[in-house]
Amino acid sequence: MNIDWASTSHMTEIDPTKPLPADIGILEETDLVIIGGSDGVTQTATDNVVQQVRGSFPDLPLVQEPYASAQISGETTASVDWIVVPVVFNGDRDHFVGNHVRMLSQLGSDLEALLGQDVSVMDVVEKLVPVGYVIQNTNSKAASIAGVSDSLSVAQVRGAALATEIFYDFPIFHVDYAGMFGGTADTTAAATYFEDTALLYSGGIDSAQKATDVLAAGADAIVVNECFHENVDAFTQTTRISPSQI
Amino acid sequence: MNIDWASTSHMTEIDPTKPLPADIGILEETDLVIIGGSDGVTQTATDNVVQQVRGSFPDLPLVQEPYASAQISGETTASVDWIVVPVVFNGDRDHFVGNHVRMLSQLGSDLEALLGQDVSVMDVVEKLVPVGYVIQNTNSKAASIAGVSDSLSVAQVRGAALATEIFYDFPIFHVDYAGMFGGTADTTAAATYFEDTALLYSGGIDSAQKATDVLAAGADAIVVNECFHENVDAFTQTTRISPSQI
Repeated sequence: MNIDWASTSHMTEIDPTKPLPADIGILEETDLVIIGGSDGVTQTATDNVVQQVRGSFPDLPLVQEPYASAQISGETTASVDWIVVPVVFNGDRDHFVGNHVRMLSQLGSDLEALLGQDVSVMDVVEKLVPVGYVIQNTNSKAASIAGVSDSLSVAQVRGAALATEIFYDFPIFHVDYAGMFGGTADTTAAATYFEDTALLYSGGIDSAQKATDVLAAGADAIVVNECFHENVDAFTQTTRISPSQI
Repeated sequence: MNIDWASTSHMTEIDPTKPLPADIGILEETDLVIIGGSDGVTQTATDNVVQQVRGSFPDLPLVQEPYASAQISGETTASVDWIVVPVVFNGDRDHFVGNHVRMLSQLGSDLEALLGQDVSVMDVVEKLVPVGYVIQNTNSKAASIAGVSDSLSVAQVRGAALATEIFYDFPIFHVDYAGMFGGTADTTAAATYFEDTALLYSGGIDSAQKATDVLAAGADAIVVNECFHENVDAFTQTTRISPSQI
């Protein structure tokens, strides 16, 4: 994964199950698009959004963040730059290791048969990027899917961040407040030890002030989601930040 | 971790709770020593073995493999080259992520107070090495400690190996048959996709033939344990392998 973090501070997460804004030209101001969602996402809906975004912005980095392996297809793999796979620190066993090993066991078996046809397992899976993930809104759909029953304390977020930086070595650590704004304490704590890891924050960012605060606290990038679908003006505000304030 | 795998094919795992052989000079034939054990290991017993091995073989690479964070001390950290921490693919949640994050949260908190005294968290933890681990003898003490109820099929071992190589990126993958010899099928399967990951096998290796078979199947190194304590002749056999047979 070779994201230039110096020029990637604003990401937009699109939920394929929700209507797109009338003019997706507002994506011109974002640095990267994530096709995400956490409920009822289908391969068809995903491919549809991928095509629209690619059609309007052929050079915009495009990432899929599936929550189930059924959402990953050869078509998606060919269309997106990366497939990020959350490894949920405060989720259940399946969402830290179980699903991932099952997916790769299956992939290994499927591809065994193809190896004679010049398809390399490594080619197919090289787009997979693990993301150390913390879900802090225990009432969210994301928490329910990942088996999250407790949010992490600030000290635990710092511990999970340290574990990511020096132990698990995931390239990205993501603090997700899933639908609500969580302030900057977790971002400040997680940023303490980061040298190699990029730090993302999402949840409730709907103004230039919140965007600026989180970036100033140490996030490499903010992920803006709900207001892209629901409030074009608020979304546009989050993209218009003066670098001098960060 | 900078092990030269080309010259490291034989490792000896010493259990500090068991008596050492009369002459530990037999370690001259091994390439690396792991201070391990899985029951009743204390910090004192560990330090004792570390001193004896360091006294006789000052240049032999020395690794601690603790199964509980209470076994890790500043003294140990200073004395050993690495502290390998198993991440057990078929263990319970605690043994894949829970214990590790708790340990690093604690370490982060403890060291906060020391940061003003020129102690860097990164200095202390830089010796920690994660090892993707599979425990295949479900009746062993190791399985009981790590919450392993099921061994993995050959396809699942291959999946866990692929997950290690391209997703979790642990530098080492270890198949442990914990007290019994498990043959070579898992080693062959795990070796399929390895380019960056080193592959270790342990369990019941007590002859030159078994050692040769496992290395020929693709293991970078074998880990010999029981017979070091129990059968010096068998141990010595495992160290005398003709490279031409591998």
